[in-house]
Amino acid sequence: MEAEIITIGDELLIGQTVDTNSAYLGQKLGSIGISVSRKTAIRDNESAILQAIAESQSRCNILIITGGLGPTKDDITKKTLCKYFNCGMRRDLTVIDHLEKIFAERGRQLLETNLVQADLPETCITLQNNVGTAPGMWFDQNNKILISLPGVPVEVYHLIEESILPKLQETLQLPIVEHRTLVTLQKAESLLSKDLEEFENTLPKSLSLAYLPNFNMVKLRLSQKANVASDLIIDEYFDKLIATIHDDVFCLGDKDPATHLSEHLIREGITFTTAESCTGGFIANRLMQTPGISSVFPGSIVCYSNDVKISELGVDPNIIETYGAVSEPCALAMANGVREKFNTQLSIATTGIAGPDGGTKEKPVGLVYIAVSTESQSICKKFRLFGNREQIIQRSSNAAIWMAKQVLTIPL
Amino acid sequence: MEAEIITIGDELLIGQTVDTNSAYLGQKLGSIGISVSRKTAIRDNESAILQAIAESQSRCNILIITGGLGPTKDDITKKTLCKYFNCGMRRDLTVIDHLEKIFAERGRQLLETNLVQADLPETCITLQNNVGTAPGMWFDQNNKILISLPGVPVEVYHLIEESILPKLQETLQLPIVEHRTLVTLQKAESLLSKDLEEFENTLPKSLSLAYLPNFNMVKLRLSQKANVASDLIIDEYFDKLIATIHDDVFCLGDKDPATHLSEHLIREGITFTTAESCTGGFIANRLMQTPGISSVFPGSIVCYSNDVKISELGVDPNIIETYGAVSEPCALAMANGVREKFNTQLSIATTGIAGPDGGTKEKPVGLVYIAVSTESQSICKKFRLFGNREQIIQRSSNAAIWMAKQVLTIPL
Repeated sequence: MEAEIITIGDELLIGQTVDTNSAYLGQKLGSIGISVSRKTAIRDNESAILQAIAESQSRCNILIITGGLGPTKDDITKKTLCKYFNCGMRRDLTVIDHLEKIFAERGRQLLETNLVQADLPETCITLQNNVGTAPGMWFDQNNKILISLPGVPVEVYHLIEESILPKLQETLQLPIVEHRTLVTLQKAESLLSKDLEEFENTLPKSLSLAYLPNFNMVKLRLSQKANVASDLIIDEYFDKLIATIHDDVFCLGDKDPATHLSEHLIREGITFTTAESCTGGFIANRLMQTPGISSVFPGSIVCYSNDVKISELGVDPNIIETYGAVSEPCALAMANGVREKFNTQLSIATTGIAGPDGGTKEKPVGLVYIAVSTESQSICKKFRLFGNREQIIQRSSNAAIWMAKQVLTIPL
Repeated sequence: MEAEIITIGDELLIGQTVDTNSAYLGQKLGSIGISVSRKTAIRDNESAILQAIAESQSRCNILIITGGLGPTKDDITKKTLCKYFNCGMRRDLTVIDHLEKIFAERGRQLLETNLVQADLPETCITLQNNVGTAPGMWFDQNNKILISLPGVPVEVYHLIEESILPKLQETLQLPIVEHRTLVTLQKAESLLSKDLEEFENTLPKSLSLAYLPNFNMVKLRLSQKANVASDLIIDEYFDKLIATIHDDVFCLGDKDPATHLSEHLIREGITFTTAESCTGGFIANRLMQTPGISSVFPGSIVCYSNDVKISELGVDPNIIETYGAVSEPCALAMANGVREKFNTQLSIATTGIAGPDGGTKEKPVGLVYIAVSTESQSICKKFRLFGNREQIIQRSSNAAIWMAKQVLTIPL
């Protein structure tokens, strides 16, 4: 089954916004056996929209449109859909209820401009948008499904997961597509692919393996498409995959490694803290995204300056004088100091040069020391990371999460 | 003058790769007066490529294609272009020279597979690619320009800046296009659009205004296209736009508000810190993305637990007992405490309920107190924010950045 995506918005064409929605849609539709054959980005312009929809519907049966549903003048998708389907607008009372509730909660006055969001083409089914004000729309005419969504990414995620994927599965006869994903950290894609050469050669035709690299993390996704459930052999091959690269696997599932670590800490009641210099709180911030983290995370310190390293973490000034702040002894002293200060079982400390300035020949941009400490052991590793400031911080945080696994016994 | 972009590659459609090339191309082409009217992503498939090229050339005179130029089997763009232009391949000796040089530098042997990169359709002009192995190609037939580029972003940047933009400017008579952008915080798109109704009605036809909302931030972009520089009246109208909503403007330009605040702090040498409970260090983390921040940012505290609020920030336990940790007195005590602790000129503190758990009827999820403190004044505001955990944290950080502007005098 094939689908197309049309994204509407001048901001996509002039390059003000990088379109992340359609990559997300490609992934999610793929996960239920619908493959995206074309994506088209066009302007907020009636004739361009009409033309693109007609072309797309002539090629395939499922079309998803995003964008152009805001309350302002330049958002013309709804009007254009009325024209395309040759129908009028209706005011949807369930949307009015939803808007009234949202605006009352926010203590804001509901204006006529806002009520316009409840005006929908007569022929569509309303898809309630619980995280925003513009509902999604589902059209089903002449055996062609057209779905119109707002352009705001969180609203797209909500509508796709809560209503559209289930509704597509219910409406269409889709093949079975199964994916199994695992996450590796700290191993290059080229080395993984070498280790997996033999495994890939033995893969039956119905299975495929994809490498999804992102900084120093590589997700491996094994996929199988089948007509009947009894043909599914994916779990057997996933086990083989895990066995082949066992020591490089950080966790199973399509999961952020930070979430996997956080969930383990919460489940086991292991309290933790961080003392972050070059990563500026990024590690704590990734770990605290997991709900319930407050039970094991009292707080943490960002310590950019040497003064703060000394006064807050009790780093011996002699260490900084002798070895410098970007050094193994300093990273270890920071990790131990912050663990004792917050009286936690685990701590992570980082000190390094994230750039773009501040590097020297001896201590270049990208040099980062990371220490992980518990009451019974402390380890420190030196990393030479590449990329810009953002990438160095991102890679440092992945390296720190990987080191936590070496100190704790975290199941996959 | 209009252009279209076609990106070729299965990885774009299954969502494995987010397409950043075409946003870049949109910006660069826009900067020389060529507006992108459509972007299409298609598979590595001959008939899909032929169809998309033909459609695009029927609509406009400039077409840029990226991807499918690698040396592997699934890269079929060149062969398909030969078919489209009904021509054969020629081996380009300047490309051979370049390949020999690159491979010698890298100490690698030049294989026949690599030499294939020098085979180009007979009718194209070669665009030397000094940062990679696949050259760009320039076709000019029947007054239609078609440019084919590799998909690797750094190679696209190199070819566009070094050869394509100058060649387009030399070949075509291009109009002038100008954009002016400003950023507002804490005001809903619908309210802004109400305030700007009259302004929008008076806009001459050559100008257009776009609203680009993202959490509690809205970017406003004014655009003008003109044939001669003397027709440009965009600055006059941009001044009017600024004057109309002056108090809601956070900064001018297409800029992250956190960057604008950081740059101001660095430029003015204003030291700052944060004490973050519900935002878990996210505000500090946004501010520290700006290079050079370490000169004004000694460090900061994440204080999830009440114990840390008391022991590290000196919050009076009676405040927490009487008003709770999520309260105005606690936020103010945190802001003052952290400012004194790190001896900075400015501090920001947050305490609230980011959810999804932990809300009560009196203190629901989304209730956030934010305090900003300097030596001469402290302010605290209560917010009732919406969305999931991530959105509440994101909106809190925008609200805090907006409050910093109320305390400091930050020029636009």
